[in-house]
Amino acid sequence: MVIIMNPDATQQNINDVIEVIKDVGLEARVTEGVQQKIVAVIGDKSKLMPVPIDAMTGVDHCVAISKSYKLASRESHPQSSVINVSGVEIGGSEPIIMAGPCAVESREQLLESAEIIKSGGAQFLRGGAYKPRTSPYSFQGLEEEGLKYLAEAREKTGLKIVTEVTTVEAIEKVAYYADMLQIGARNMQNFGLLKEVGKCGKPVLLKRGLAATLDEWLNAAEYIMSEGNPNVVFCERGIRTYETYTRNTLDMSAIAAIKHLSHLPIIVDPSHGTGKWRMVKPMALAAIAAGADGLMMEVHPNPAKALSDGSQSLTPEHYRDVMTSINKLAKFIKAENLLSFVED
Amino acid sequence: MVIIMNPDATQQNINDVIEVIKDVGLEARVTEGVQQKIVAVIGDKSKLMPVPIDAMTGVDHCVAISKSYKLASRESHPQSSVINVSGVEIGGSEPIIMAGPCAVESREQLLESAEIIKSGGAQFLRGGAYKPRTSPYSFQGLEEEGLKYLAEAREKTGLKIVTEVTTVEAIEKVAYYADMLQIGARNMQNFGLLKEVGKCGKPVLLKRGLAATLDEWLNAAEYIMSEGNPNVVFCERGIRTYETYTRNTLDMSAIAAIKHLSHLPIIVDPSHGTGKWRMVKPMALAAIAAGADGLMMEVHPNPAKALSDGSQSLTPEHYRDVMTSINKLAKFIKAENLLSFVED
Amino acid sequence: MVIIMNPDATQQNINDVIEVIKDVGLEARVTEGVQQKIVAVIGDKSKLMPVPIDAMTGVDHCVAISKSYKLASRESHPQSSVINVSGVEIGGSEPIIMAGPCAVESREQLLESAEIIKSGGAQFLRGGAYKPRTSPYSFQGLEEEGLKYLAEAREKTGLKIVTEVTTVEAIEKVAYYADMLQIGARNMQNFGLLKEVGKCGKPVLLKRGLAATLDEWLNAAEYIMSEGNPNVVFCERGIRTYETYTRNTLDMSAIAAIKHLSHLPIIVDPSHGTGKWRMVKPMALAAIAAGADGLMMEVHPNPAKALSDGSQSLTPEHYRDVMTSINKLAKFIKAENLLSFVED
Amino acid sequence: MVIIMNPDATQQNINDVIEVIKDVGLEARVTEGVQQKIVAVIGDKSKLMPVPIDAMTGVDHCVAISKSYKLASRESHPQSSVINVSGVEIGGSEPIIMAGPCAVESREQLLESAEIIKSGGAQFLRGGAYKPRTSPYSFQGLEEEGLKYLAEAREKTGLKIVTEVTTVEAIEKVAYYADMLQIGARNMQNFGLLKEVGKCGKPVLLKRGLAATLDEWLNAAEYIMSEGNPNVVFCERGIRTYETYTRNTLDMSAIAAIKHLSHLPIIVDPSHGTGKWRMVKPMALAAIAAGADGLMMEVHPNPAKALSDGSQSLTPEHYRDVMTSINKLAKFIKAENLLSFVED
Repeated sequence: MVIIMNPDATQQNINDVIEVIKDVGLEARVTEGVQQKIVAVIGDKSKLMPVPIDAMTGVDHCVAISKSYKLASRESHPQSSVINVSGVEIGGSEPIIMAGPCAVESREQLLESAEIIKSGGAQFLRGGAYKPRTSPYSFQGLEEEGLKYLAEAREKTGLKIVTEVTTVEAIEKVAYYADMLQIGARNMQNFGLLKEVGKCGKPVLLKRGLAATLDEWLNAAEYIMSEGNPNVVFCERGIRTYETYTRNTLDMSAIAAIKHLSHLPIIVDPSHGTGKWRMVKPMALAAIAAGADGLMMEVHPNPAKALSDGSQSLTPEHYRDVMTSINKLAKFIKAENLLSFVED
Repeated sequence: MVIIMNPDATQQNINDVIEVIKDVGLEARVTEGVQQKIVAVIGDKSKLMPVPIDAMTGVDHCVAISKSYKLASRESHPQSSVINVSGVEIGGSEPIIMAGPCAVESREQLLESAEIIKSGGAQFLRGGAYKPRTSPYSFQGLEEEGLKYLAEAREKTGLKIVTEVTTVEAIEKVAYYADMLQIGARNMQNFGLLKEVGKCGKPVLLKRGLAATLDEWLNAAEYIMSEGNPNVVFCERGIRTYETYTRNTLDMSAIAAIKHLSHLPIIVDPSHGTGKWRMVKPMALAAIAAGADGLMMEVHPNPAKALSDGSQSLTPEHYRDVMTSINKLAKFIKAENLLSFVED
Repeated sequence: MVIIMNPDATQQNINDVIEVIKDVGLEARVTEGVQQKIVAVIGDKSKLMPVPIDAMTGVDHCVAISKSYKLASRESHPQSSVINVSGVEIGGSEPIIMAGPCAVESREQLLESAEIIKSGGAQFLRGGAYKPRTSPYSFQGLEEEGLKYLAEAREKTGLKIVTEVTTVEAIEKVAYYADMLQIGARNMQNFGLLKEVGKCGKPVLLKRGLAATLDEWLNAAEYIMSEGNPNVVFCERGIRTYETYTRNTLDMSAIAAIKHLSHLPIIVDPSHGTGKWRMVKPMALAAIAAGADGLMMEVHPNPAKALSDGSQSLTPEHYRDVMTSINKLAKFIKAENLLSFVED
Repeated sequence: MVIIMNPDATQQNINDVIEVIKDVGLEARVTEGVQQKIVAVIGDKSKLMPVPIDAMTGVDHCVAISKSYKLASRESHPQSSVINVSGVEIGGSEPIIMAGPCAVESREQLLESAEIIKSGGAQFLRGGAYKPRTSPYSFQGLEEEGLKYLAEAREKTGLKIVTEVTTVEAIEKVAYYADMLQIGARNMQNFGLLKEVGKCGKPVLLKRGLAATLDEWLNAAEYIMSEGNPNVVFCERGIRTYETYTRNTLDMSAIAAIKHLSHLPIIVDPSHGTGKWRMVKPMALAAIAAGADGLMMEVHPNPAKALSDGSQSLTPEHYRDVMTSINKLAKFIKAENLLSFVED
């Protein structure tokens, strides 16, 4: 950490800052500029967390120069991680596709969806049994009944199940039926929930919060990992910006950023990221070209009857078309090693 | 709801839309424009929630023209509500001030703070016993021990206690010790938590989410109210924007907007809203002048030693100064009836 | 400036950085941390502007610790400036009000508006003769004809004239008729225009850009001032955020921030800042309570017939009501010295 | 346009609205809902632009249902346009690459850059002679001298020249030396400049504004086109959001959106869009996979000495690597027809 002093800070102010730093067992080095003095802190700055140095007299502001997450960082784990979910490897040599309806609506709808998803080549079936909805009067999901349909669909198709868990109380149930627990955007900083899915040990798909910075997202993964669960996969699903044409602004650069900052895999959800089914295919291809480890897409047997988010769902025909293009693209990129860097 | 058809929608497309509307028991009226047809839906549009009309062939987009929240809306309850919290009225004739340290750090710190807060004239003591923190390695609060100190401070000073609850498990404990439960920004859409504080019945201070729209905020209140708890007070605490000089961008216009859209009281937190103690006083005065029902402010016996958010905390001297100015201003505005409208 | 090296930077990398710094005549000081080395630059960092140190091998990132604007900064000019516009002092002891229609629509409309504005007590008449509009097919203003009506209104009422200039070509004409030139939000970084109004010397009202940071805004003022024109007044008019209920999000904290960072006056435009006439009064009062040096408000003889921005215009009745409240509030705040700080 | 009346609007209010609509020669149709009445406007709504219906008594709000741009819209021109710039076709069968240094720094640097760019296979050389800079004290470009070097580089290499024009005064000069005029992000709503480049007739590369909506961007193109210049190419270069890890947030979905809404080509600038050279390659590949018509990239003979934006510039080695990958990817996508839709 670097502490920038005010131009008019006194020597006493600087001494006070140094004393606080030494009090917690760290070293301080002062550099005298023409206008301002700078105090550099040497050692593990987390010891200084309880001390609000930027509130001390004479301090202008502080600049963090190392990260608050460790287990999730690539610095601590230079090699990319592969997360094994019931035998399917995420972050390995091929992109993993999670597809299905936004919500589990009925046994019939889900089983029909599962057959479509399976035939198109995805590895995971998605579908919400617990739905976090803006209005209390909107459809909130079939809950345990929905989980049972998901498990039945797995038996019939062999697809792995990823589904959202929204409360600590539901973790046990969801973990019983699903292969992977999804933490939704609205719960990305529900720290109680993060800790409990950390303790539970099941692989976690961690969606980015509506307005979460990369740093907050990485720290959310750290919450899960610091409870002993290393099986975290990020999912970029668009962020909230001033633009209203799309439901969210899909931050494609997050793929490259997460790959640089972390060893964990990242997949992309172009359905929520754009809110428009016509944009799913180009954004899915873009994500694969940018190095994403997989995709999550909404597919519905009959999108005009979906219980929620209908207009962003692909039809079965579009889904199969997208899958064909994605698979061709992914194979070509791998065969040609397109994403490697010159120095690699 | 109004459904805008594509310029090239067929008569069959329009008939399909009309049929879906009639299927759920509503009426449809078609208006033919030069370029586009419009279908207006007559009746309670919530019946249409499960039907994604905007995904139907020929539909361009839909426009909602009535609100998804009812109990929180001023339309349903034209008179402003006054929320009684252990005898203190929020939304009544004088502004209610909640002040105290960000976190409960120790018994000594809290009791000292309580004396300062009391002597300055605030009605509520605030202080976090459960702290939601971005990093799992940051100080997370004293938990029940902190609640006990808060209760002890109430006994000594008569101040009411408002403190954050972050998990369903902690509701019972927090409700036992506190007069008012705070839902923090990161939990504004933790719907499980909202429902449970709704069932609990204790007055709730509902902070605005980091990037929540007014509509989402009002719906979050609706979650609490629809479980039978009408005692909700909004707290504007700044929203996330591109500007980094301030910690958040305090949306002062939310006061006027909430007053127009809802009958519930709204207070303002200029400490989190700006992140800079120097800005607290001008923003506190602005909030009162705009009609806020109160304020929440961070005050610390010695800000340079606060465990978190130190640099946005007022010193006891500044706190007393702000309180004096606020009280003078509030009295003047009321005596002169400055905020009334011409037509009132 | 502080340069943070990568944890794996070599001594050669550090030497290269130091050499570059010395090449431009500055000094470098190295501090060795446990994980990372830091190079502090001593001297006027503007000499380093042409050198992209953050692109050098081994450099993680750079942190600026002093400001890129000088003439606009309070550091360089500790006392608050009062800007004299044709005898009216902005930044002096009373708030200055600029009011009028969004656009000059006709001689009759403008003269009628001017009488209303004058009778309500404002000092400036506003009204656009050149209108920057999103669509090329929208009304673009009466241009020179509009300027003449403004000048005629000044003759009749004694009001000062502030009106927008959108092109370099029009500066001479606008400066001939008006007392103060307004730079609109869309032109805040039209640097050619800023330089020319700098050379022209007339007082300038500099609106904040749609998504401008405070730093960019202060630098825009610096463009004008560095050409020899010290007569700049800031106008906060709302920033672009994700919230769509209001036309923009009025950043009330900008008042306190600009007062801290700069010696120049700042006024607030609650009409564009909210886009809703009902919000103008509470936001106007809030701005005065926060220390703004004045206000700009849209008023129209008959808002339902205004050529643009109609729904945010006050009626004459509302305008007089707002003026009465503002004047009472401003007098009270001054008499009671409410905005002073404890240590002052 | 659809006008939503308040629940408590009177019949007189509705009659007044209808009268205003009829006054401008349009038709009105009223639909009575249970809670609210709706008035649909039939005919060319641009006639209503001067009338602020949303300010009329009884009106809740208005909803536009058709677009304000025509010439730029795909509705008016269903087939995709190919823009011919001195013999190079943008929007044709292969991606067009524009590359070069951020700024023209010297004759030597530019000619060296041009050779590198040419050898890598790009069709355009970019480089700023007029630089819009936040601070007046930053390097502002070599101006006409820089233009001459660009023209010399074209003679030597055959590369086409694209360079920014920032003022109306400079249009003639820039148009004399360059093949394509660039309008930078800060000038996207400099309407005077847009009109003049429209009159000038040279092809225009129109960068998206820092916080411009798609609708504003399309209208900016309309400004140029409505002056008689149909040769407009869009360039997505990232938008301003709350995320600070990247310089901007590259809105990859804008490619698909613009392709849907407009017939004009769109290219992507991953250098400004991310601000980090390591992210240029994955974002360049993503843009091509999403259907972009080309790319603009910063390349510098020696990035550590670039006069501005250095850290986002590619080295010659990285540039050649990116070009090889892009070309392979583009050929594969075209050969396999990956981006076509099922129904095509």
